[in-house]
Order: sequence, then C-alpha cells, then structure tokens
Amino acid sequence: MKAVILLSGGLDSSTVLYQALADGYECYAISFDYQQRHRRELHSALAIAKKAGVLQNQIVTFDLRQWGGSALTDDTIDLPQKRSLEEMSQNIPVTYVPARNTIFLSFALAYAETIAAECVYIGVNALDYSGYPDCRPDYIQAMQEVFRLGTKQGREGKPITIVAPLLDLKKTDIIQLGNKLGVPWELTWSCYAGGELACGICDSCRLRLAAFAELGLKDPLNYASVF
Amino acid sequence: MKAVILLSGGLDSSTVLYQALADGYECYAISFDYQQRHRRELHSALAIAKKAGVLQNQIVTFDLRQWGGSALTDDTIDLPQKRSLEEMSQNIPVTYVPARNTIFLSFALAYAETIAAECVYIGVNALDYSGYPDCRPDYIQAMQEVFRLGTKQGREGKPITIVAPLLDLKKTDIIQLGNKLGVPWELTWSCYAGGELACGICDSCRLRLAAFAELGLKDPLNYASVF
Repeated sequence: MKAVILLSGGLDSSTVLYQALADGYECYAISFDYQQRHRRELHSALAIAKKAGVLQNQIVTFDLRQWGGSALTDDTIDLPQKRSLEEMSQNIPVTYVPARNTIFLSFALAYAETIAAECVYIGVNALDYSGYPDCRPDYIQAMQEVFRLGTKQGREGKPITIVAPLLDLKKTDIIQLGNKLGVPWELTWSCYAGGELACGICDSCRLRLAAFAELGLKDPLNYASVF
Repeated sequence: MKAVILLSGGLDSSTVLYQALADGYECYAISFDYQQRHRRELHSALAIAKKAGVLQNQIVTFDLRQWGGSALTDDTIDLPQKRSLEEMSQNIPVTYVPARNTIFLSFALAYAETIAAECVYIGVNALDYSGYPDCRPDYIQAMQEVFRLGTKQGREGKPITIVAPLLDLKKTDIIQLGNKLGVPWELTWSCYAGGELACGICDSCRLRLAAFAELGLKDPLNYASVF
C-alpha cells in the first residue's frame, strides 16, 4: 500500500510522515521549491525523508514569486515578528500564500494517481493560530471531491483519499504524537525567515517554541534569539 | 473587472480568451510549461495573448516528466494516431495527464486571488471525445467549492468564479463561436506531437480537422499529413 506524503520538513508534516509509516504505508514524499523565503526547509525535508526511509522524495519546482502576494513569496512584505499567540489567531496573516495547499494537493494527486497510491497525507491543522483558509476541515472535504471527480482513478475505481491526521490537534498534541512516533525534531525546520538559524520570533517559531514550552520540553533546534 | 484566462494556445482556450474580452474583462492569461510533448503550444499562447492585448501572460514552469504517466509527459508512451472520432470517445485516452486541470486551476486561483480578479476562464468541454475526467461539469463544480473554501477572498468576500463557457459545446459550435469572436485560428496550436508542423493524425489534430470539415471550413494551419 502506497501513500504520498506532503513533506515540507516542518514539525507537522514530519509527524504526518511518521504516522503514515506507522499506519503501514510505503511512503513517497513530495516537497515544493516555490522560491519560498524559507526554501531552506527543503534540506530538512530531504534529511527527514532519508532518515525515515521514504522510497522517493519528489521535489517539484515552480516560482510563486512570479506574482507574490505573500510575505513568504515577496521580500517587500515584512514577516510578522514577536506576536503573541492571541495576536496570531485574529486574522489571516500576511504569510498566507494564495491557494498554496490547493497547488500542493494538486501535485500530490497527480503523483499519487501516477504511482497508484491509495492516499495522500497532509499535515494541516485547523487549531492553534494561522486561520489559513486552506487548513480547515470543509476545505479538505472539498478537495476530496476534486480527488474523486478529477481523476481517472476516482472515476473508474477507488478515489485517492486525503488523510489529515492532525486536523483537530493542537500543536502540543502534535508534539506529543511526534514523540510517540519518534520524529527527529532536530532535523525539522519551521522558521519562515530563511536564515542559517531559526529566528525564534516569526509566527512559526513562536508557535513551535510556545508548544514545546507548554509541555515542559526543550526544542532541540538552535534559535538566533528567543522572544 | 479582471479575469484570469487559462491559455494553452489551442482552439478552445483561445476562443475562451476572446469570449472573456467580449464579456468586458481585463484579461490576464496564464500558461504552463510542464515539459509537455507539445511545449511548442506556448509560442501560440504568447502570440494569441499579444494579438488579443492581454495585460500579462504568466508562464508557470514545472516538470510533469518527473513522474510522467501520460503520453504527453512520457516519450515512451506512444501517442494514439489515426483514430476515428468514435474510437476516441470510448475510453479515457493515454494522453490524459493525471490531475492536470486541477494543477492548472490551482495556479490560476493563486494568481487570480493575488491580482484580485473576479473569475477564472477555462476552455474545458465535456462533449466530443476525450472523456477526460477533469473536463466534466461535476468536476468544475467541485473545484468551484475549492475556490470558495480554499482562499481568503472566498472566505471573506466574493469567491472567485470559474467560468467555463465551452462546457456544453461541440467542437463545431466552438469554431462557430470563435469565428463570431474573431479568434485568429492561424495562430492557434492543437497538435500533441510537438513537431514543426501539426501532424494531422493525433487525436487533437483529428478532432480539430473533423470539426472544420464538418462546417465546410478550411483550417488555416498547415498539416504534415492529413488522414
């Protein structure tokens, strides 16, 4: 049984990869170089894929800086920094990348159909900040319909299933799950800023650090600064 | 009012571009270099965009040969040739590219949201051969839900609309519509084979030639051979 795993190299997608392995799948990862500010996350994706023994890690390359529209794809839009979890939870932030998960899931669907995989694992979660529209349950359900209707496999056989095991988990729950599964946190990368060290002050670092702290655990990554 | 137009340079998408202009939109085209066998179609897309006066033609580049799975993205899979329209209509053909329209629509959605466009025009049609699963009305409807739920614009304002004006038209209807709209057929490109001249014998050439013939019109393209 094959599964395609959307693997960014972050905490969530790495946990999902280990979950898919625990679920008994032969895992095929897919990662994206879209000229994101934190393109460096791809090194983590590759290291984790190697460590976990995935059979193939596709890196799909395209350039979302062509039109930008996000702090992750346009250097003239500043990254939010030093925000509290409450501030983060109030609006869709400027790090929102238009239609990103739709693009990612589309490529994952194409890859999954080509290798006759049963499912696509994605590490979205709807709780804990972000408010990204394409991380919510109703969106995932809508994409599932696309998976069913938009492919030969979906029309003629069993549709490829979207598996989102973190959908209803808090970041602390995800870390606890990852600990149980043996996710190598030291290889992961969450920081948006794109520096040599994780910045410690972007939303993504803040959220991660807060969750480790809440659990009384130490994040093994080195941070440039801690807010 | 802005619209994003999926423009491959073929007969259908070119007609759709002219329809969008007739509908009063400022048109922004998006085309894809996915290492398709008939990559040459991009020259047509650019020429038509220029002729029609579109404001910007984005070419998005990625490589679907990474995993192949279609006669259009894997040279070891032969193109069907010299098939009758009846033969073409029987099964999903090997020229089906897994999840292609989902990928295309995802990028179009990202672009549309970034430039605050109202709608995305796509030249799918469900009649006349192909049987491509991602050209059917129920699929378009499923993608419309994704457009609504997967974006900030869809969640907070008016969702970006998918406009598919050719959905229920036959190829002959499309040619008649294009004639009315003044589509420059001589600039379009439909052939799958990727040669200097259109081959005249692949499914796409056959379908196009048959439609011009049925209308008693001459296709202005030069063909290498006519079956």
